[in-house]
Amino acid sequence: MAVLAATALPASRDDLEQLQLERLQATLHRVQRHVAFYRSMFADTGFDPDQCASLSDLQRLPLTNETDLCQAYPYDMFATPLKEVVQIHTTTGRHPEPVVHGYTERDLTNAAMLMARIMTGLGLDADDVFQITLNYGLGTGAFTFHEGARKLGASVIPTATGRTPKQVQIMRDFGTSCLVATPSYALRLLQTLKDQDVSPAALRLKCLLVTGEPFSADTRAVLEDGFQAQIYDLYGLSAAYGPVVAAQCRNQSVLHVQEDLFYAEVLDPQTHQPVPDGEWGELVLTTLVKEAVPLLRYRTGDKVRRVPDTCGCGSVFTALDRIAGRVDDVLTVKGVNIAPARIGQLLSTYLDFDIHWNATIAGSGPDQELILRLGIREDLFFDQMKRQRKLVDDLRRYLAQWLGVTPRVLLVEPDSLN
Amino acid sequence: MAVLAATALPASRDDLEQLQLERLQATLHRVQRHVAFYRSMFADTGFDPDQCASLSDLQRLPLTNETDLCQAYPYDMFATPLKEVVQIHTTTGRHPEPVVHGYTERDLTNAAMLMARIMTGLGLDADDVFQITLNYGLGTGAFTFHEGARKLGASVIPTATGRTPKQVQIMRDFGTSCLVATPSYALRLLQTLKDQDVSPAALRLKCLLVTGEPFSADTRAVLEDGFQAQIYDLYGLSAAYGPVVAAQCRNQSVLHVQEDLFYAEVLDPQTHQPVPDGEWGELVLTTLVKEAVPLLRYRTGDKVRRVPDTCGCGSVFTALDRIAGRVDDVLTVKGVNIAPARIGQLLSTYLDFDIHWNATIAGSGPDQELILRLGIREDLFFDQMKRQRKLVDDLRRYLAQWLGVTPRVLLVEPDSLN
Repeated sequence: MAVLAATALPASRDDLEQLQLERLQATLHRVQRHVAFYRSMFADTGFDPDQCASLSDLQRLPLTNETDLCQAYPYDMFATPLKEVVQIHTTTGRHPEPVVHGYTERDLTNAAMLMARIMTGLGLDADDVFQITLNYGLGTGAFTFHEGARKLGASVIPTATGRTPKQVQIMRDFGTSCLVATPSYALRLLQTLKDQDVSPAALRLKCLLVTGEPFSADTRAVLEDGFQAQIYDLYGLSAAYGPVVAAQCRNQSVLHVQEDLFYAEVLDPQTHQPVPDGEWGELVLTTLVKEAVPLLRYRTGDKVRRVPDTCGCGSVFTALDRIAGRVDDVLTVKGVNIAPARIGQLLSTYLDFDIHWNATIAGSGPDQELILRLGIREDLFFDQMKRQRKLVDDLRRYLAQWLGVTPRVLLVEPDSLN
Repeated sequence: MAVLAATALPASRDDLEQLQLERLQATLHRVQRHVAFYRSMFADTGFDPDQCASLSDLQRLPLTNETDLCQAYPYDMFATPLKEVVQIHTTTGRHPEPVVHGYTERDLTNAAMLMARIMTGLGLDADDVFQITLNYGLGTGAFTFHEGARKLGASVIPTATGRTPKQVQIMRDFGTSCLVATPSYALRLLQTLKDQDVSPAALRLKCLLVTGEPFSADTRAVLEDGFQAQIYDLYGLSAAYGPVVAAQCRNQSVLHVQEDLFYAEVLDPQTHQPVPDGEWGELVLTTLVKEAVPLLRYRTGDKVRRVPDTCGCGSVFTALDRIAGRVDDVLTVKGVNIAPARIGQLLSTYLDFDIHWNATIAGSGPDQELILRLGIREDLFFDQMKRQRKLVDDLRRYLAQWLGVTPRVLLVEPDSLN
């Protein structure tokens, strides 16, 4: 496969669909040859890549979900030899095994070019100074923004998350023109800006690129007003190049799905049938050029709907409304997806007794947190404060290790959980 | 300046010194033209780059120190327009202003090529799986290892620091062959390996690349024995491309200074005169190809000595003994350098009263920590436990923001500080 010129945009829907079909066929052949999971799927369903003559033929295949990826742990979904995989990320799913995301050098290049294309569309260029406040680590987001900005020839300050007062100093003194953040961390930065009496006029901020969490129109307004800068939403997932699957353009009206790299379906989460345009469903993605871990009909779990393209920017790509949340029970906190089933497994691994519990997200913006309520039975050291305290502290640390988010752990009367 | 072929090694001392001189002359001309600080220094000392005919002529210039870099905050030491700077890092110095480290695209390429050269010399290649447990953020270390490994075409798992049990799972399941860590974090990982009853035989680990802290022969032995893998030391600083200034080769005997990119002097920290080979002094570095922030005679503060090259690897580069610590009062904890003077400034900014204090490093390896003792006067809410607790908590958080390390804060009788 030649290096994808991700900056070249298809001129019409026809051009786009022809490109998608060619790339889909290449992907189908590649996974048939290299990925046992898909080879079996094709055999079981009598699906022959050579007879895939149109994009809709893909609907004959079942969906791929996170469980499939977990069961392939660590490397069974890889379509290239490990030697060609240059970067490996993982995310926590609903299973004990994490989901493994592999990238070849060409995958990284494509992700960076796609990010650079989105950034260029927003008017960003080599003169910009990017401050990236996402965590560089097992998730892909920070790296994708970083490499995209580098492709532009812009300056990158990789601050990662935390040390917020210092981040404000850097924003001001280093002339940050584009801030990259989750919406909740952007709100925290804004609060710190106010606490430190730094006026947005003292900054050179042009825009914020936000990602990782659904957010409301109210949050957008608060951020735009507070920072006196434009907010652009970038949507994506680690399984598919990070936050480059769909993005707002300068008009800020809709999310444009980057369909030359992803074939997108919006399906009823129960029946798996397409929903009409304008109706809510689950976003299901097929990667069209991904090398290390190509995905066919992958369930994102994210609730979306196609909307009429009122944007006028001239993009031929499908327009989505803002992400409305999840179609499953997965909780999203600070940009991290957490499946309650996984919390249950961790609790039963860690505790040597059964326990009633529930998990919720409380607060919004920077105060958002994962609250885990544990029902403590009367006969279970309910009067031993010190032991309780230790249980709570140890458990919080243990869960943070595996979930990537530190929950607040509360001990409650079991009855209060019903 | 052409892209440096950092993988080509000079064949003899003569070749090396000729290369150093040419690169030094180019650097001198560039800083004279673009950096006011060096232009004034040249004028004040009557130093004419055109008359620099040998490397020893450099000794006519005064030393550059961290204070000079802080006073240039944020961008006054830059020798290229900001537009050409693609990555910006900062480190905390002894002044309120951080030290700003800028990199052009070519600087990043050179740092990565140099790292790749060192890694190749250690027998690492495209088949290796690197697990990088350093923090990706305002320091440069993690990025330099990451890009070096990528240049090899190896696989990188950017785990960053923390979540140690998960790191052990990743080491085992993902077939990590090269672990990158600070010595103290490597010890923590080793302890977790033992706690989880994972035998080193269950790993595919070939070697550990360690950096960021001086460490003893005992620590080396514990790590090699525990991991059943070779330990290689890489020395460097953010001001000079990160951990690529000097590195051990496969023989593990000495640190080879990468002299085609750095001109190194070992000076008496008081007189600033060269010390004889074999005697301890301060390492002073001149960067030979750095574009964004070239440095002339920069005081590293690190205590080193030249030793006879008993290694036999054939390198023409100067050999150093292991880093012995600091020549100044700077404390190194978990790979971060902390100047007591900076702690004093932060305390006087934060507290509205004078206080006696001292700072020490306690423990070793993974238990190493910065201990800050504050002398609390009798008349100063000494009996108000709650208020004390809050002061300690708030102060710890505040210092962590600016130092990058969370200290343990202890309130003590003022007399006990003497």
